[in-house]
Amino acid sequence: MPNLSNHTLSALDLAHIWHPCTQMKDHEDFPIVPIKSAKGVYLYDFDGSSYIDCISSWWVNLFGHCNAAINAAITNQLNELEHILLAGFSHKPIIDLSQRLCALLPRPLNKCFYADNGSSAIEIALKMSFHYHHNLHRKSPPRSKFLALSNAYHGETIGALSVGDLGLYKHTYAPILLSCLSVPVPNVFDGTKGASLHAPAELEDESYYERELHALESILSRYGEEICAFILEPLVQCAGNMHIYPKAFIKKACELCRSYGILIIFDEIAVGFGRSGSMFALEQCRITPDFLCLSKGITGGYLPLSVVITSDEIYQAFYAPYESGKAFLHSHSYTGNALACAAANAVLDIFATQNIIEQNRALSRAIFALWQELEELNIVKNLRHCGMIFAFEIDSSTPRAGVEIFRAALAKGLLLRPLGHTIYFMPPYIITIEEARFVVQTLKEILQAHFA
Amino acid sequence: MPNLSNHTLSALDLAHIWHPCTQMKDHEDFPIVPIKSAKGVYLYDFDGSSYIDCISSWWVNLFGHCNAAINAAITNQLNELEHILLAGFSHKPIIDLSQRLCALLPRPLNKCFYADNGSSAIEIALKMSFHYHHNLHRKSPPRSKFLALSNAYHGETIGALSVGDLGLYKHTYAPILLSCLSVPVPNVFDGTKGASLHAPAELEDESYYERELHALESILSRYGEEICAFILEPLVQCAGNMHIYPKAFIKKACELCRSYGILIIFDEIAVGFGRSGSMFALEQCRITPDFLCLSKGITGGYLPLSVVITSDEIYQAFYAPYESGKAFLHSHSYTGNALACAAANAVLDIFATQNIIEQNRALSRAIFALWQELEELNIVKNLRHCGMIFAFEIDSSTPRAGVEIFRAALAKGLLLRPLGHTIYFMPPYIITIEEARFVVQTLKEILQAHFA
Ligand SMILES: Cc1ncc(COP(=O)(O)O)c(C=O)c1O
Ligand SMILES: Cc1ncc(COP(=O)(O)O)c(C=O)c1O
Repeated sequence: MPNLSNHTLSALDLAHIWHPCTQMKDHEDFPIVPIKSAKGVYLYDFDGSSYIDCISSWWVNLFGHCNAAINAAITNQLNELEHILLAGFSHKPIIDLSQRLCALLPRPLNKCFYADNGSSAIEIALKMSFHYHHNLHRKSPPRSKFLALSNAYHGETIGALSVGDLGLYKHTYAPILLSCLSVPVPNVFDGTKGASLHAPAELEDESYYERELHALESILSRYGEEICAFILEPLVQCAGNMHIYPKAFIKKACELCRSYGILIIFDEIAVGFGRSGSMFALEQCRITPDFLCLSKGITGGYLPLSVVITSDEIYQAFYAPYESGKAFLHSHSYTGNALACAAANAVLDIFATQNIIEQNRALSRAIFALWQELEELNIVKNLRHCGMIFAFEIDSSTPRAGVEIFRAALAKGLLLRPLGHTIYFMPPYIITIEEARFVVQTLKEILQAHFA
Repeated sequence: MPNLSNHTLSALDLAHIWHPCTQMKDHEDFPIVPIKSAKGVYLYDFDGSSYIDCISSWWVNLFGHCNAAINAAITNQLNELEHILLAGFSHKPIIDLSQRLCALLPRPLNKCFYADNGSSAIEIALKMSFHYHHNLHRKSPPRSKFLALSNAYHGETIGALSVGDLGLYKHTYAPILLSCLSVPVPNVFDGTKGASLHAPAELEDESYYERELHALESILSRYGEEICAFILEPLVQCAGNMHIYPKAFIKKACELCRSYGILIIFDEIAVGFGRSGSMFALEQCRITPDFLCLSKGITGGYLPLSVVITSDEIYQAFYAPYESGKAFLHSHSYTGNALACAAANAVLDIFATQNIIEQNRALSRAIFALWQELEELNIVKNLRHCGMIFAFEIDSSTPRAGVEIFRAALAKGLLLRPLGHTIYFMPPYIITIEEARFVVQTLKEILQAHFA
């Protein structure tokens, strides 16, 4: 392949590709970076530059790019069975995966319903929760409302977008979305509580979320009987600017909802698989939802796969003679893809054999110690972390300060992609402390150079 | 792995997997079939039985299971780059794929927006069409309605389900769906037009769709200015019982819609990539839509991937300074997955080097000659075909006759999965005429034994 430079490929790219979550005009003066290969935390472009993937490629990568064990698992699976439909049929990778996922979760979560991306998992959980009430009570009018948190993000398909709250993604589409009820999320890391708050462990004081619980109570007293489900991202609202909020609020809010017969959906698409510090965030919240949505890290960042895990109780509400019309007839063509399941099993093997959650605890502490050095900069506010998520806001009036940092970081070998004014670090778990030190040091230089 | 029988695995499966599009109680007396491996058109279970995949695993497989060329492409890609985020970044497989897809399509279709499954592609097309009118006209009230055909199927997420019309999948969820306008699809193969109609080429007479065009006209005269887009599956509504309908209707209906400023969405998720007899059904319809949705066959049945291909004109309506708020900010974590794109490129290589569309023409004729032998059975009605899709209805009052046929076929080595009373054959393109003869012969025996 002669003459393949960043420049040539970037031009070909712009001729035919409309990139996700992008104003394409931004690329008139800032080229797309074509990546040739990747290994571990490093990405390599066609001009020979390398970048540390500081955001795990949109929070999906866990154990590095081109991981030998995951590669081997996919290659082996390719020689046996790449894909078959999952209706009426099954295969060993998905049977193993389902058994292993259920074994990692509290007992009631025992049935796995698969799909291909996070948004579709959310759609499934929404439809299942509505359908559950329908099958059980056939009430008229039916429970048909969903309750979600302010500042939530659950994906981009119309159902998922409807329960989200980020205006940037949602506002334009209001006329074609479902209406949804919203309860304010406690906002603790807003700078007003002092610089000493750094992690969810410090947020248990009821004063941090009293007001929001009252708001929830008043919504429930008015609409409690009309709501199918309460959906939330436990511990951290990632797309919502890496917003960490109190787990005690989560527990109490869920208990309140349950007292009205409302089902609980945990969206752990971003925080699952160790990202929050425990294998699943629900462990820290000490509550078992009725639906757990997983995706992203499930295949270690290799292939699209998602799953909604629910209880036998929910499953039973759909289990009836065919003629009853109670079946959940949702499907996607590639549901339960064997290659993606093989990758997911390899990921669970790594968790099991390398004691990742335990190791990440030490790594998280060490990285946070480095991260805290940034606090000495005046423009760094609300510095915080949760497991393998590290964040702060920059206190700057530059309208697109995040974009400026993205570009400056790229020039220095980092793939850092801020969310507005929120800078975050969410690396693959295999990052070394030396690499993390390089990231933080480089980020510090950028902040000093651009916002001194 | 000792003791892995169908029986053991099926029990493990039922303990933890909730299968798509399935009343799970059906599996109390009919076990799930665990597939161990597959090769070409054959699936092999853990008890040593084999099955011909007569439905291409939900219409996704084109060139057989464990295809050497596609396997090699994925393995090579695994050694370079498995996945990176597509915002701000790109990679060679997706640049190649986008260029090649656009080269296969009429000129105006020139920009590719990717996602992971068919439903998500539909959601993107719906959101883009709404957003296009919004960006261009900012009319109040906005165009916010969608127009679709009766008997349509576009997927299961809430937006996609809203524009579908199959009560089986949709009815329960009515209270949480968007309202959608529906125009009747011409129903030609309903048995009343005589047994001589067999293929879309025979459906051009205006009498076959006059009434439906009038219905469309009256909808448009009432709602024309409120509709963003008209969505349809060109040539064949697959999930809608393999319903073949006149291409002349499609052309005229689209032209009528366009005269009201309504955008056209072609859902070729099922019929694309040669299934309809041409590479894309739009070639036969002689109309270029504003949005073309593709998935399923795009990776040859290997991995979830979907794409919405649109025109530079649509793209330009979103191309503006960031501050204008005109960008299309939709995304999915795994958008543009490099492994899936590598598979897709291998699929396009096979099309190009093996002259598949031309070869399929002969194969389609030969298979249809066999298929027609079934017409001598009394219970076979509306026998028809379009490209590599062959179908008929069974004229039986048995409520779940299709399920009976599925079970009987499985016992005889065929994976055939009827849609209600519609029996169809949609094999991988690599099926031999001998294998097809075995399928048709076996099906004939089953029909004779069960419905004599
Ligand atoms: C015409 C059509 N559109 C959309 C879809 C939905 O695609 P997916 O199942 O990948 O979500 C299908 C799936 O069968 C289809 O046949
Ligand atoms: C919490 C959460 N939910 C849902 C999604 C949507 O998943 P996907 O992008 O795979 O559709 C995301 C993606 O970023 C997410 O972070």
